[in-house]
Amino acid sequence: MKVGVVGASGYTGELLVQLLIRHPAVELAVVTSRAHAGKPLSAVIPMLRGADRGLVFVDSDPAALAASDCALFFLALPHGAAATYARALVAAGKRVIDLSADFRIADLETYTRYYGEHQAPELLPHARYVLPEITAPSWRAQAKLVAAPGCYPTSILVPLVPLLRAGLVSREHIVANSFSGVSGAGKKAEEAYLYVERAESAKAYGLTSHRHLAEIEEQLSLAVSEWEAALASRAADARPAQAHKTGQPLAIQFNPHLAPMRRGIATTITVPAAPGASLDALRAVWAAAYAEAPFVQLLAEGQTPDTAHVVGTNRIDIAAAYDPRTRNFVLTSAEDNLLKGAGGQAVQIMNLWCGFAETAGLA
Amino acid sequence: MKVGVVGASGYTGELLVQLLIRHPAVELAVVTSRAHAGKPLSAVIPMLRGADRGLVFVDSDPAALAASDCALFFLALPHGAAATYARALVAAGKRVIDLSADFRIADLETYTRYYGEHQAPELLPHARYVLPEITAPSWRAQAKLVAAPGCYPTSILVPLVPLLRAGLVSREHIVANSFSGVSGAGKKAEEAYLYVERAESAKAYGLTSHRHLAEIEEQLSLAVSEWEAALASRAADARPAQAHKTGQPLAIQFNPHLAPMRRGIATTITVPAAPGASLDALRAVWAAAYAEAPFVQLLAEGQTPDTAHVVGTNRIDIAAAYDPRTRNFVLTSAEDNLLKGAGGQAVQIMNLWCGFAETAGLA
Amino acid sequence: MKVGVVGASGYTGELLVQLLIRHPAVELAVVTSRAHAGKPLSAVIPMLRGADRGLVFVDSDPAALAASDCALFFLALPHGAAATYARALVAAGKRVIDLSADFRIADLETYTRYYGEHQAPELLPHARYVLPEITAPSWRAQAKLVAAPGCYPTSILVPLVPLLRAGLVSREHIVANSFSGVSGAGKKAEEAYLYVERAESAKAYGLTSHRHLAEIEEQLSLAVSEWEAALASRAADARPAQAHKTGQPLAIQFNPHLAPMRRGIATTITVPAAPGASLDALRAVWAAAYAEAPFVQLLAEGQTPDTAHVVGTNRIDIAAAYDPRTRNFVLTSAEDNLLKGAGGQAVQIMNLWCGFAETAGLA
Amino acid sequence: MKVGVVGASGYTGELLVQLLIRHPAVELAVVTSRAHAGKPLSAVIPMLRGADRGLVFVDSDPAALAASDCALFFLALPHGAAATYARALVAAGKRVIDLSADFRIADLETYTRYYGEHQAPELLPHARYVLPEITAPSWRAQAKLVAAPGCYPTSILVPLVPLLRAGLVSREHIVANSFSGVSGAGKKAEEAYLYVERAESAKAYGLTSHRHLAEIEEQLSLAVSEWEAALASRAADARPAQAHKTGQPLAIQFNPHLAPMRRGIATTITVPAAPGASLDALRAVWAAAYAEAPFVQLLAEGQTPDTAHVVGTNRIDIAAAYDPRTRNFVLTSAEDNLLKGAGGQAVQIMNLWCGFAETAGLA
Repeated sequence: MKVGVVGASGYTGELLVQLLIRHPAVELAVVTSRAHAGKPLSAVIPMLRGADRGLVFVDSDPAALAASDCALFFLALPHGAAATYARALVAAGKRVIDLSADFRIADLETYTRYYGEHQAPELLPHARYVLPEITAPSWRAQAKLVAAPGCYPTSILVPLVPLLRAGLVSREHIVANSFSGVSGAGKKAEEAYLYVERAESAKAYGLTSHRHLAEIEEQLSLAVSEWEAALASRAADARPAQAHKTGQPLAIQFNPHLAPMRRGIATTITVPAAPGASLDALRAVWAAAYAEAPFVQLLAEGQTPDTAHVVGTNRIDIAAAYDPRTRNFVLTSAEDNLLKGAGGQAVQIMNLWCGFAETAGLA
Repeated sequence: MKVGVVGASGYTGELLVQLLIRHPAVELAVVTSRAHAGKPLSAVIPMLRGADRGLVFVDSDPAALAASDCALFFLALPHGAAATYARALVAAGKRVIDLSADFRIADLETYTRYYGEHQAPELLPHARYVLPEITAPSWRAQAKLVAAPGCYPTSILVPLVPLLRAGLVSREHIVANSFSGVSGAGKKAEEAYLYVERAESAKAYGLTSHRHLAEIEEQLSLAVSEWEAALASRAADARPAQAHKTGQPLAIQFNPHLAPMRRGIATTITVPAAPGASLDALRAVWAAAYAEAPFVQLLAEGQTPDTAHVVGTNRIDIAAAYDPRTRNFVLTSAEDNLLKGAGGQAVQIMNLWCGFAETAGLA
Repeated sequence: MKVGVVGASGYTGELLVQLLIRHPAVELAVVTSRAHAGKPLSAVIPMLRGADRGLVFVDSDPAALAASDCALFFLALPHGAAATYARALVAAGKRVIDLSADFRIADLETYTRYYGEHQAPELLPHARYVLPEITAPSWRAQAKLVAAPGCYPTSILVPLVPLLRAGLVSREHIVANSFSGVSGAGKKAEEAYLYVERAESAKAYGLTSHRHLAEIEEQLSLAVSEWEAALASRAADARPAQAHKTGQPLAIQFNPHLAPMRRGIATTITVPAAPGASLDALRAVWAAAYAEAPFVQLLAEGQTPDTAHVVGTNRIDIAAAYDPRTRNFVLTSAEDNLLKGAGGQAVQIMNLWCGFAETAGLA
Repeated sequence: MKVGVVGASGYTGELLVQLLIRHPAVELAVVTSRAHAGKPLSAVIPMLRGADRGLVFVDSDPAALAASDCALFFLALPHGAAATYARALVAAGKRVIDLSADFRIADLETYTRYYGEHQAPELLPHARYVLPEITAPSWRAQAKLVAAPGCYPTSILVPLVPLLRAGLVSREHIVANSFSGVSGAGKKAEEAYLYVERAESAKAYGLTSHRHLAEIEEQLSLAVSEWEAALASRAADARPAQAHKTGQPLAIQFNPHLAPMRRGIATTITVPAAPGASLDALRAVWAAAYAEAPFVQLLAEGQTPDTAHVVGTNRIDIAAAYDPRTRNFVLTSAEDNLLKGAGGQAVQIMNLWCGFAETAGLA
């Protein structure tokens, strides 16, 4: 199966290209980049010296890509830029996996509030937000366009969603602190991202209003709704007249930080335990939710995830602790922001969508 | 004035020695270290080559130190080891500043629960926990022994205490996440602290039970008590029969993390705002509390502290944001764990105790 | 084909295990480690969580390994420890690839001078030092035991050997400066290798007497001998009575340094050009020598290798410059000390020895 | 004494400003920066929060500075930009210390070859290149303008010059390899200097043609000339008719590298020993040359300098080894590129020029 990558410069795009070149079931046939059109891949991605299959960046327009014989395209463009490509490719029946935020939010008003005017709202009904371990598998049949989740959201949703669905944690007073390597900021030649500025430096940023809140809260709200629906159906058996509590919008405190490392996200979520919830129950819910998930590792009690153990893999490690003094659960996760947080997850989505082994090309 | 440092090897002790050697108002006369007795300072602290004033480590016993002509001693020994020295020195009328946790906790039962049996409980009435910007100045007259606060606690108490005293924040659902440079773990030749293990690595540790909780919660509880007393006195005017609410023990979620850097602590505290509390009110409380504090810098709105801007100084930068969606305040701070978090604060304490300029030797 | 790794703890061994687990043509059947016997691989190598094929470290003795059905063994033991294993395995007809220095030096007196008494000198005639791009292919038929080269030597020999063989550079006044990531020192819990000691630190070490000089100079002398033999045969045609100059022992200045990074070696070699040698001639020699070498990349003029571009790959990038003022060539190389400098090269050797594609498992 | 800094943004200028603010004998009265005119120092240099003496950047023209009551100015402008300021200030009788390369080279043709057309050649006779430990003290009376040496040159000249003056080392086959922290490249928002590009990265650059060769070779040639003059005067006694060998231009191999650290330069120089020269003789020459040099530390045999031990100080540590196999000396040095390599040395020059203690403000 031939695939293409649109907008392949930048840290995410470059790593995605490297994954696809080595993927046993696909042939990377097209790689586009306006800035580097005409250059060999290895001239721009030194990691690929001697291993770029002779591929050259092209400057391609949507129509040409739609007419090509690639069956699936990855869009690795900046937010707002995917629309024209998405439109043409979906219309031509190509499968599209978008790494930007453009199709992650189902609610148009929320999207507009965080990202501005949506460039292709007519595609939203055909789009699905897919975090493979979380999203019900019906997406594989329904989606024409898949939105790969953001890096921070992945690190928060994987630990938290099963627990909200099971009613094990409160929906209030959720605090998620994340600590990211600098590659998360992209390959921008700005003073703030210079080596001398970022080495030996840790600082919070984007407090209270980071764009990732849009998809984090939408997904967490869905999980709460599932719990409430389950409650309601149980309640219905016993008390048929009782209406279930409708899903209320959920608001969390999300505190991102820049860390003096290149890759990796370490996330620590503090959330009050639901009455009667125990650490054993939590671990059982995780075990059940992720029994078949090759890329989620549940650590033993007492262990905590370490970004150094996951960077370079498509894995997310998770752990939980319970504090009887505060009655909070403290959930921790670690992932590679460029792999499980971006390109690796996109390839995992392709594998599931196209019927390959879920781990193909991601060992 | 002659001073001495007991137990001067290790990152904290070595930096304290460097500060004292350069201090304009004191003469560092004695530096003890069992492991390095007999060696010149510069042989163990390469930063001091050519600048160690010819000082040599000695292996000194408490009696000898008590009989010396040093007026003040810093104890930089591991927890539990200070007792014998503290006893002898206090008895001899020497001023003692202890950098360990041994005299930080007023409540003996709390100390025992976190640290084990106290080795010199009879000294506790003469000891004072002194975070200069927080602690009422009466300590200067009352203390015979001063306990310098821990690194993480400093980064949490400076932002939070004035707000609890002013009743601007809730006492519940407080979550403090801290990221620390590896020097905070000490100079231990253990695999976990090897360069290859810690570079490009971020991970949580010590969740729910870090020893620093003892002093953090004791100090925060004191702040809450002050607020409640203030409330009660106001209430008494209006409703004389109403008893004020007694201070309840406070429990916070404290989540420490190791960061891939040598020095620095970045702390982010999420805490619900009290009803009616505004960001302007918070900033006004900080401005009033720290107007005369040369080492506390209140950043402008929109800014966040960066460890790279404070490491090498005795400064702690603080900032605040308010999230109307969650009604939380998000407080951030950054300090150098070895300076404001340890040796620098100890020198600041000495300056205040002995009548020097507060900033002497700490520019 | 089943393979085993003896002594698989430590940075080199752990990475070798990861390569073999993913190798398409072999099955890693045995992994030994005295310290970790009984533990699953993933318990010791966190990178392998969920991907360790259920393998468990065993504490195995040479006889048991020799009796197993593994066809080839990698020895990743400390210097001097390989002897017993090598003896038993070679006697049993197993192929052995040794990552220590024990069989790298042909001259026993040289080995003894640098490493001490040799533990299995009777095996030396059956051993071959194999740097695949340099060593004549006859080793594949002749060797019973292959010594994989050291990390620094690889970075020096790859650029230099073809040039000495072609008589393009002087054999005198060779200066090789190398800059290595800290993993090259091994996983030793020693103060010198702590994060706080090595971060932001660059320093020379092992000057004038680093053990790697033994194999570097032996291999460079062989290259010089080949050149001299070629000269002699040409001379014989013209002047039959002229004896060729016998190979003299070659001595280079090798200056290793520790760099504040985890992996990678950057080497810069300064060597006088032979009379009449030009940069074009040098590049032509390299191009011819490495035309079929998938892991050697010759950079364009003006480019210099960067460890960040090779770490994680089995590649060594090389470049050359000429300085007409000094008439020196300046040769630069970059490799991953744990891959091309150790485990990756060992797998490459296995591939060639066993008839697999040279790049198998090393993409 | 009032002083000013012209062009105070950038890593060098910012650190120089911090040194002068704390200097006990001068008052920093003027700080200019076109880009930041009007901003408080602490707004641009966060390290100076709460400690910037209320100073504000000004956009000042040479005439205004010349008319001010500052007695001495530091020029921290890019190469080629100092001319107008130097001219006006020298004409007004101000002392000028220039941190650029503009007045470092005595030979105009050499300067032009490396830097382009000189903007103020008429000032050259009044300028002196001053490396305090190396340059004869007559500069203090003669200079109207002092050129502070470059960072790499300092690290090479301090070890090498006394040895050339004493005839202990060859003038040929000198190879100097240097590893520098990224701050040496300046605060330029270019992709090459981004954190993600430079972390875990070591690479050579500027091979064979780095601009610093101009001053390095000029200074080394001067040292050789002094040796030859000494030889000649001795020879004259014996053979009065023999002309001494005239100083030939000296060419060295200088190989700079970027290292994954913020600050520091580690330099390793390989140079053949002169016939009969011994390591003891070398150490004696160093001891004599630097007996009164507070900022040069000669390490014990077997030790090598470490940038982590000098960064933050104005010190340069040096060490030497001798290799009897190659008959080379290997000289090593470590300094802070922003202190002894730039701003610290400039302050040291001011101290000597103005009669302050040499170490004033540089403890």
